[in-house]
Amino acid sequence: MKQVAYIRFDGEEYPYYIMKKILILFYLLCPLLIFAQEDDDAFKIREIYDISLTQGDAYETLEHLCTKVGGRLSGSSGAAAAVDYGKAKFETMGFDSVWLQPCMVPHWERGDKEVVKIVASQTLGTQAFNGIALGGSGRSGKLGVAGEVIEVQGIEELKALGAAKVRGKIVFYNRPMDPLQVSTFAAYGGAVDQRVYGPEAAMELGAVATLVRSMTTKLDDVPHSGVTYFEDRSKAIPAVAISTKDAELLSTLLEKEPVRVYVKTDCQWMPDKLSYNVVGEIKGSTFPDEIIVVGGHLDSWDVNQGAHDDGAGCTQALDVINTFKKLKIKPQRTLRCVWFMNEENGQEGAKAYANWSNDKGEKHIAAIESDRGGFTPRGFTTEADEAVYKTHIKKAKKWDKLLSPYGIVIKPSGGSGADVTRLKPQMGLLFGLQPDSQRYFDYHHAPNDNFEAVNKRELELGAAAMSSLVYLLDKYGM
Amino acid sequence: MKQVAYIRFDGEEYPYYIMKKILILFYLLCPLLIFAQEDDDAFKIREIYDISLTQGDAYETLEHLCTKVGGRLSGSSGAAAAVDYGKAKFETMGFDSVWLQPCMVPHWERGDKEVVKIVASQTLGTQAFNGIALGGSGRSGKLGVAGEVIEVQGIEELKALGAAKVRGKIVFYNRPMDPLQVSTFAAYGGAVDQRVYGPEAAMELGAVATLVRSMTTKLDDVPHSGVTYFEDRSKAIPAVAISTKDAELLSTLLEKEPVRVYVKTDCQWMPDKLSYNVVGEIKGSTFPDEIIVVGGHLDSWDVNQGAHDDGAGCTQALDVINTFKKLKIKPQRTLRCVWFMNEENGQEGAKAYANWSNDKGEKHIAAIESDRGGFTPRGFTTEADEAVYKTHIKKAKKWDKLLSPYGIVIKPSGGSGADVTRLKPQMGLLFGLQPDSQRYFDYHHAPNDNFEAVNKRELELGAAAMSSLVYLLDKYGM
Repeated sequence: MKQVAYIRFDGEEYPYYIMKKILILFYLLCPLLIFAQEDDDAFKIREIYDISLTQGDAYETLEHLCTKVGGRLSGSSGAAAAVDYGKAKFETMGFDSVWLQPCMVPHWERGDKEVVKIVASQTLGTQAFNGIALGGSGRSGKLGVAGEVIEVQGIEELKALGAAKVRGKIVFYNRPMDPLQVSTFAAYGGAVDQRVYGPEAAMELGAVATLVRSMTTKLDDVPHSGVTYFEDRSKAIPAVAISTKDAELLSTLLEKEPVRVYVKTDCQWMPDKLSYNVVGEIKGSTFPDEIIVVGGHLDSWDVNQGAHDDGAGCTQALDVINTFKKLKIKPQRTLRCVWFMNEENGQEGAKAYANWSNDKGEKHIAAIESDRGGFTPRGFTTEADEAVYKTHIKKAKKWDKLLSPYGIVIKPSGGSGADVTRLKPQMGLLFGLQPDSQRYFDYHHAPNDNFEAVNKRELELGAAAMSSLVYLLDKYGM
Repeated sequence: MKQVAYIRFDGEEYPYYIMKKILILFYLLCPLLIFAQEDDDAFKIREIYDISLTQGDAYETLEHLCTKVGGRLSGSSGAAAAVDYGKAKFETMGFDSVWLQPCMVPHWERGDKEVVKIVASQTLGTQAFNGIALGGSGRSGKLGVAGEVIEVQGIEELKALGAAKVRGKIVFYNRPMDPLQVSTFAAYGGAVDQRVYGPEAAMELGAVATLVRSMTTKLDDVPHSGVTYFEDRSKAIPAVAISTKDAELLSTLLEKEPVRVYVKTDCQWMPDKLSYNVVGEIKGSTFPDEIIVVGGHLDSWDVNQGAHDDGAGCTQALDVINTFKKLKIKPQRTLRCVWFMNEENGQEGAKAYANWSNDKGEKHIAAIESDRGGFTPRGFTTEADEAVYKTHIKKAKKWDKLLSPYGIVIKPSGGSGADVTRLKPQMGLLFGLQPDSQRYFDYHHAPNDNFEAVNKRELELGAAAMSSLVYLLDKYGM
């Protein structure tokens, strides 16, 4: 008080003295302000978790999507019903606008249940397999096809055999997912080429059908479907995944004796079909041109309810909106939720969204996809254009201390998700929710990926992690 | 080469010059040596994981313990069979010595299946509950007991009501595990006093029976048992856990109207019984007096197979021995594996081991317990005597960089395990394996804690984490 009396309030010295006082005060309080800001964020993130864990919407929405809608392969009536449900559901969430974004999707149908069996083995005679046609598999014809089985560990090995040894045979790809990888996604990445490109390679060498060991580290009777690729669909041969136990059995038999297998598939390609992404938007109050998108993919395979893949991701993404509404957080930046169509066999929804957004000259500062199952979240993987990655990651890594109390770490690698990766040219930071991966491939593309396979708390913790990240992205930008 | 020629090799200068050269070389190579050592450890830990994930013993042992032995509550024939199996199994593992360590254990029996039902409510009339007697519950007598239900949220609230309002009633403890805790163990810790001490407090105020909301965050029909404590066992009243859904139903009814409940239990205390810890030991080659123990507890509740609690921990601990044998690692320090008896309702096995060890003047430099379920491991919690904790933790934290590629972090807090914590006076560092906690209380002490609830890879990753830590402790000491 005394010192203030000495300050002269005349002329230019007035602002100088005042400024000096203010600056000193500012420097003194600065650490406190930063702490206060962090405390404020920590408090908000705690509120977000509280809402997700007690008033979350994800589990209930997932139950509906799984048990009322069910399987929703692109082009199917299930996918159409899922779009209808999605739009209706989005319209209850308090978005500023909700719309369907059209895209033409491939339409493959499984037809009658496939038959896969050993028809001649000295040891076993006949033996039915737990088989399931791959998405994109060809049709065997009504009589099915039979052939001697030739086992290979990969496409290169097959090609080395040459057409003379493959013609008329049934090729059996049996390289397992590597159990030594701690991340099961790494193990999947190291084996899935057999499923995606193996059947076409076999066809080119004259094989009549293909069997593929299911993509899982688990030894059980569950077959796992997934996409296979034929450049010329009209040439597609039957391509069937068999369970890991059946694969082991077949391989053991083949060490001893020739084995003939019979395969019957009823699959066919139909004309492409009109379908949609479901999109909801809340316009940003301050920076409406900076967009943050959260999403998952709405389509699933036809053999299950698509619970982990990717009902979980869709409903977690939508729960971000639920949480923001419940906490009355009005985003400064434009926030969108998208349920993408056709991730599984074409990504036409992702292309439609990215093309539309690019055409409008939009700027997605961030995109977050959840498409690795509804398990306990452990962090976010990331990607961005090389020109901005270091700067973005540096900024995002500062949030680790806010997120780590919840077991969440931002990782400077690992990619984002198949549906949002196309937004990279908009120079934002792209995230993929990274849950614990150990159980994902117990269910992936298999008949057991149903609602019961998802644990409520694990799902909700993932939703909370996404909401927290969106909160920080919205508040601080990128 | 030229410079070497200038070195004089006479007198004292010889060692000086040589030493100088050696020292320079040492300083130059020192970082390389450290790196080489770290590389060596990284390589060994990778080998440990490879063995655990492909030639591990834990899952098969767990299957036997769960499906062939089954429930093994202290004093029961199941517990005796488990000890027999344990000894036989240990004897196949290549220990230097295997023995049974005696302990007298409490012996409580459930008797006939308990009956819990609403017998009078205006709204519902009668309604059966999913109920299960707590371990230590009293017997109702053949006719059972009935009484008006009085709901409280905790022991303090009950005491405040006083005997006049409690006498003749059935007390219903209904404070849920806090769903906002990210760690479900923290939530359990905040609610379990109702189960452990609530029934006795109710008895002291004249209640005729106690109902306790099951200790789980999941809303379902599964009742969860667990220990309850009566100082004077002869005064124990019936104490029954009901499922969370039944607890919600009962609470809702009580808001509207008086509800009378009937409880019948057939439980009784038998005389203490002789039982055993199963112990195996490999004598240390270099430091035989420095002991490292790994363990879990062999007893379980009687209503399940004790798969996560704690068959998982027992079989993970034993898998450390399997892995060391397969990799031909001969421990420098003495390595023991212990399957402790009676963790659930007395810890008499833990006391017997600690007393015996203390009496011999032993020095456990480390102890590792796994007793939080066979889920994906995320690290080790720790404890030690205050006098040594900082030094120990500093040393152990250096191993984070070797363990973090596997998702394992050493945490400077969190305790160890009920069976090894008594070794703290020996001044070693005590560890508890810390798996993901989200699903543990879906199964804990409940009829669904069976073999199928355990995921093979998750179990094996925990075993690998324990083996890796034992490898480092054995190599570097503590």
